[in-house]
Amino acid sequence: MAERIIARPLTAAAFAPYGDVIEKDGAHHFPINNGKCMRYHDLAKVETSGPGAHPIVSIASSEPYELPLSLTMVERHPFGSQAFIPLTDRPYLVVVCPDENGTPRRPEAFLAANGQGVNYRQNTWHGVLTPLEAQSDFIIVDRAGEGENLEEFFFDAPYSVVVE
Amino acid sequence: MAERIIARPLTAAAFAPYGDVIEKDGAHHFPINNGKCMRYHDLAKVETSGPGAHPIVSIASSEPYELPLSLTMVERHPFGSQAFIPLTDRPYLVVVCPDENGTPRRPEAFLAANGQGVNYRQNTWHGVLTPLEAQSDFIIVDRAGEGENLEEFFFDAPYSVVVE
Repeated sequence: MAERIIARPLTAAAFAPYGDVIEKDGAHHFPINNGKCMRYHDLAKVETSGPGAHPIVSIASSEPYELPLSLTMVERHPFGSQAFIPLTDRPYLVVVCPDENGTPRRPEAFLAANGQGVNYRQNTWHGVLTPLEAQSDFIIVDRAGEGENLEEFFFDAPYSVVVE
Repeated sequence: MAERIIARPLTAAAFAPYGDVIEKDGAHHFPINNGKCMRYHDLAKVETSGPGAHPIVSIASSEPYELPLSLTMVERHPFGSQAFIPLTDRPYLVVVCPDENGTPRRPEAFLAANGQGVNYRQNTWHGVLTPLEAQSDFIIVDRAGEGENLEEFFFDAPYSVVVE
């Protein structure tokens, strides 16, 4: 039987080893536009490196996944960070792994909700985009350029990710 | 009486002189994640220049504006592009001006809707974020760094921007 990973609520503190949580709560903010608008400032460190590197904005539209999630692989991007910001308030799973000498260790899972976005730091192992409940669109901010910016790792046995 | 500017529907073709429309319609796209997800790729040219330049992700939460909009000023950012992507489907106004020798010419106005985002090209004159109907949140992708990245221009007389 697959080893179980229990998804915890996504918080900036818990996610700090892997990247940024993009949300207004707790963010540095200040008024702009004659006080009509509040700017929650600099919520994600956008990293781009390697030949021809530049940041791009894209949209991902993903089908939902069923729980428990059978987690068979993770991936990472050696040349850049990758941010996902949901265009809905629906929940999605965020799976990351610590790295040890180029190999992902046991996954950690988080449940993002209420419009929280995430930014995976450059070269951080993470699962693919995993919305729950319904087809969901996300803004992506990541890196374009030359070179192979994708590394995949397939686990010997899948993990089972659950939400409690 | 203020000169009237009539907002047109926002389209990529009409907005091309000023920047990008961030939307799925008409975008280059391809499947990822074993076919579970469609990626609408590279929808905005993120520009950052000048000392210490780097792209950042922020959130703007703006009060709505009333129509007709009294347009008194526009601004531009000499060191970077600036993208706004709504986190709702509510409409907002997009105001831009052609430049002539450093001075904004007669404004053009667009009505963005259904989740369309915009990316103002570096050094493009534009109005401030102008949601309609209700308080609205937007993702911002723009430039941080050193140097004065804001230039403002106040019109001799305000324009009146309307939606027909």
